[in-house]
Amino acid sequence: MKIQPRNKRELMAAALGRIECDFAVTNCRYLNLFTGEEYPATVYIHDGFVVHVEPNPKSAPEKAKQVVDAGGRYILPGLIDAHVHIESSLMTPPVFASAVVPHGVTCVITDPHEIGNVLGEEAVVYMHDAGSDLPMYQFIDIPSCVPSVPGLEEAGASFDASVIDRLAKLPHVIGLAEVMDFLGVVDGEDRMMEIIDAAERNGLYLQGHLPAGFGRLVSAYRIGGPLTCHETGRPGEALDKLRAGMYVDARESSMCYNLPTIWNDVKDLPWRDRLSLCTDDREADDILANGQLDLVLRNIIKLGMDPIEAIRAATLHPAQEAGLENLGAVAPGYVANFLLVDDLEQFTVHAVYFEGREVAREGRLLTAIPRRQFAVEQKNSVNAPDLTLEDFRLRAPAGCGDRVRINVLTYGDYTSLTRIESEELPVKDGFVDISGDDELCFAMVVNRYGTGNRTFGLVRGFGLARGADGSTISHDCHNLTLVFRDPESALAVYNQLRSVGGGICAAENGKVVCTLALPVGGLMSADPAEQTAAAATAMKQALRELGLEMTNPLLRIATLALPVVPAAKFTDLGLVDVMKKAFVPIFPEN
Amino acid sequence: MKIQPRNKRELMAAALGRIECDFAVTNCRYLNLFTGEEYPATVYIHDGFVVHVEPNPKSAPEKAKQVVDAGGRYILPGLIDAHVHIESSLMTPPVFASAVVPHGVTCVITDPHEIGNVLGEEAVVYMHDAGSDLPMYQFIDIPSCVPSVPGLEEAGASFDASVIDRLAKLPHVIGLAEVMDFLGVVDGEDRMMEIIDAAERNGLYLQGHLPAGFGRLVSAYRIGGPLTCHETGRPGEALDKLRAGMYVDARESSMCYNLPTIWNDVKDLPWRDRLSLCTDDREADDILANGQLDLVLRNIIKLGMDPIEAIRAATLHPAQEAGLENLGAVAPGYVANFLLVDDLEQFTVHAVYFEGREVAREGRLLTAIPRRQFAVEQKNSVNAPDLTLEDFRLRAPAGCGDRVRINVLTYGDYTSLTRIESEELPVKDGFVDISGDDELCFAMVVNRYGTGNRTFGLVRGFGLARGADGSTISHDCHNLTLVFRDPESALAVYNQLRSVGGGICAAENGKVVCTLALPVGGLMSADPAEQTAAAATAMKQALRELGLEMTNPLLRIATLALPVVPAAKFTDLGLVDVMKKAFVPIFPEN
Repeated sequence: MKIQPRNKRELMAAALGRIECDFAVTNCRYLNLFTGEEYPATVYIHDGFVVHVEPNPKSAPEKAKQVVDAGGRYILPGLIDAHVHIESSLMTPPVFASAVVPHGVTCVITDPHEIGNVLGEEAVVYMHDAGSDLPMYQFIDIPSCVPSVPGLEEAGASFDASVIDRLAKLPHVIGLAEVMDFLGVVDGEDRMMEIIDAAERNGLYLQGHLPAGFGRLVSAYRIGGPLTCHETGRPGEALDKLRAGMYVDARESSMCYNLPTIWNDVKDLPWRDRLSLCTDDREADDILANGQLDLVLRNIIKLGMDPIEAIRAATLHPAQEAGLENLGAVAPGYVANFLLVDDLEQFTVHAVYFEGREVAREGRLLTAIPRRQFAVEQKNSVNAPDLTLEDFRLRAPAGCGDRVRINVLTYGDYTSLTRIESEELPVKDGFVDISGDDELCFAMVVNRYGTGNRTFGLVRGFGLARGADGSTISHDCHNLTLVFRDPESALAVYNQLRSVGGGICAAENGKVVCTLALPVGGLMSADPAEQTAAAATAMKQALRELGLEMTNPLLRIATLALPVVPAAKFTDLGLVDVMKKAFVPIFPEN
Repeated sequence: MKIQPRNKRELMAAALGRIECDFAVTNCRYLNLFTGEEYPATVYIHDGFVVHVEPNPKSAPEKAKQVVDAGGRYILPGLIDAHVHIESSLMTPPVFASAVVPHGVTCVITDPHEIGNVLGEEAVVYMHDAGSDLPMYQFIDIPSCVPSVPGLEEAGASFDASVIDRLAKLPHVIGLAEVMDFLGVVDGEDRMMEIIDAAERNGLYLQGHLPAGFGRLVSAYRIGGPLTCHETGRPGEALDKLRAGMYVDARESSMCYNLPTIWNDVKDLPWRDRLSLCTDDREADDILANGQLDLVLRNIIKLGMDPIEAIRAATLHPAQEAGLENLGAVAPGYVANFLLVDDLEQFTVHAVYFEGREVAREGRLLTAIPRRQFAVEQKNSVNAPDLTLEDFRLRAPAGCGDRVRINVLTYGDYTSLTRIESEELPVKDGFVDISGDDELCFAMVVNRYGTGNRTFGLVRGFGLARGADGSTISHDCHNLTLVFRDPESALAVYNQLRSVGGGICAAENGKVVCTLALPVGGLMSADPAEQTAAAATAMKQALRELGLEMTNPLLRIATLALPVVPAAKFTDLGLVDVMKKAFVPIFPEN
């Protein structure tokens, strides 16, 4: 993918000094990301592109209509996030742009996997279109695994090779997004082989996803096609992947802090050309308070990476892995997306330029992002049935007496890893009674795509002490998922989520106490970033008050139904033994 | 361009150790070109691909049908020549392969520019087809400038954007070859803009050609599209190109030794990721005696480059610049083109593997290259008119008396740079008489594509003391070019070249003394490499005996008609002032 100029002849004439260019940036410290040098430079910009960089200029700029004095600051390429789900920010693409551009992020490679699972092909088109004509680039990698694990859950869509063929024609589509079904790849399953073939046929690069990938597994996966991986969390993993020629997209999301482990792996290597930075999932409040890719950059510099190399990992390397030919450097022919930065360690972004236009300064957006209408944003994506209070009481099998044996999804301490434990619990009036055990909650997953599927069981160690927590963010099918102590609160949350078109909701004593409405696909809000950030913060507080004391209580429920994370999950189709890819009855033969 | 395996599932199964792979290479020193590390490794090969590299193996290979003991040697990727004209070797593609494979060259990126000018599109198809099914890859970049300078000369063909569109469909076509008309590019001339657009539309990378390229010219050319340049000979030039993000293909041809200058430019840079090696033009005798890309590699190591980085510049970097996704490394998913090498400084190639098969050992080819028939090889490309002795006497304009003013193409000392000098010379019996001046020769360029064009003039300082030198290798249109002292020798050479279908020929006293027959397009021979090398050596000796005392007398005549090299040239259309792109009369108004 190369961004084509409006008039190449004019750019060349400006480069040669035959015509005046739009402006020149003087008095800046220039880092050459190709050679590793630092020198003073004058950078000439015309019609959205860098046309010439004059090193060690001996005189004032020539042939420039205007001069911008950088005041001795660094001039750097705009940051490029190698892998992000915009949905995870809780903001629609234009709102996301308004939040990240002031942080110096002028390009993201985004995987609309979440809304793709909810609303299918049209949602990818929506993310593409809503992500266009903004003061940043939002390139699209087509979701590769919709649904994540066919047969174990039902999403709103299913993508096969023909979908890839169609979506690949969209102008900002550049890759196939994180190929999560890595077992499907290395086992050569038809679905993944066909999808990968379609992607390669359409000239897309293949983004990978290989958690706990080492040795022969990395080799096999690499042969399968994926070039990159952002799921690198264990010691030695980054080394194995880099040695095999993969790009390692070092991640710092709102949940996962992989940098220290990765840096420890790679810090002594002579070359780290294939190390990139990414955020994967960061929420609105976290972005506004702490930053986006700029935070990841600051953190890897703190760990000890040379700043110029860190900047390369946040600009040129992501561009190279994604095949973005003229992004990621301040060099002739490259799009004039650049930053003026006070210092590299603090990485304080003074000004952000996109396509040669100043779009943010001192953390403030300078450009209005027009509010456009999209059909997908108006669509209610929550198609779940009417339920009554009765439906939220867990009926024990007939004839089981006053005790019942039940398979309980059980959390380990402080981790999201789960297992299935068989327990014997009391039955009262024909219903399972958890009132005497503080660590137990009811859990329900309701298909929200009109299938009528519903799973109802028990979870131990989730952390909810009272009331109900419900969410339509529930990876990866995003069915309406509830965890609750009492049916009244569950019903209140359920009805509230249906009425606002999805989001996250908490209730206590049968009354809603907080709602984070995410009506776009049940995942995002089109409200201003500050508003969504404030709502997310309020929601986290509300959930903490119900007993969810982990760092990020918002996302505790979001992985309850994710059957690619070991070892036990609920989906809309039942209780899943993840490692066996099989269902386990809630009530075993009693 | 990604080389696809026959059965990806099987490769993945072999990587995982689920099935036995074809063989494993043990006891080798492995250089990781991604990380810069060296460690012992076992390399697993299956069905022509590397499936797994086990670092620091603690046990004997597992799941391998055979084991190859590398005897403690280095295992390295096969060398990749970033830019070469196979025609310049004087050998057809299969013969070229037989000569270079034992040197460890398993891939070249070739520009069939010479034969393209002679025989057009069908010649590119010929080079493509003849370069397929060999124990090496010969990828094709489509000649971009056929003819080099429209209007100043007439070639056998003319390529426009529609030719690019058609040729881009050939499976081994990967790029647009050296865009020589750099003024046409930066001036935005229609021809070059359309050709570049066609190349980009077809997903081809753009190979450049920018001699004496500095500063703003590099910027403008880079904006125009070309990514690489192998014409880097002056101090500071490599630095300017690398800084602008271009790949510098450091060249050592049989004529040009650019390495010392380039190395001096780049040796202190922190990063040299975009430095590649290439040969451009090397003749059969030079290849057999001294080597091909292996020689360039040895020489840059001698200059001081770290061997592992030099190897990267001869393997992974050329692959990256040309978009060859799974060539240039010994890594999972990469084609099993690799070498076993005794030591890095001497670079003694012990064994060469291509697609997992040993194809050369200790400098000897182990595989037969079948002799195939191609229509182009049978075609007589020399369509020049019958001429008589009279035609080789230079008639002075009528009425000029016994002296005539004439524009003489004049060589500087020891260089191929030329200028036009006006001289007054004696006329005898109506013909220009050079018998009294040892430094003058007649020069004639005869169009060999049936147009009837012919230019006849004088050259000073060429170096020929007696007899005649003639060649159908005459860049870039390859018209039949003669330099001679006496008409009898000229006629003998002319008729000999017509009768053998082209090549190089020397005569003295009216008799042919040596012929290097190159009947394939008048440029190449399908004879065995040793035979062509011996004939080239003999030809050089014969020309030396006629007074051509430079290092390579073979190519002295080959640039006489090349109107892109300053400042004066003969073409079939006349005497050219190169800088003015205009013709100058041989005889000014007398």
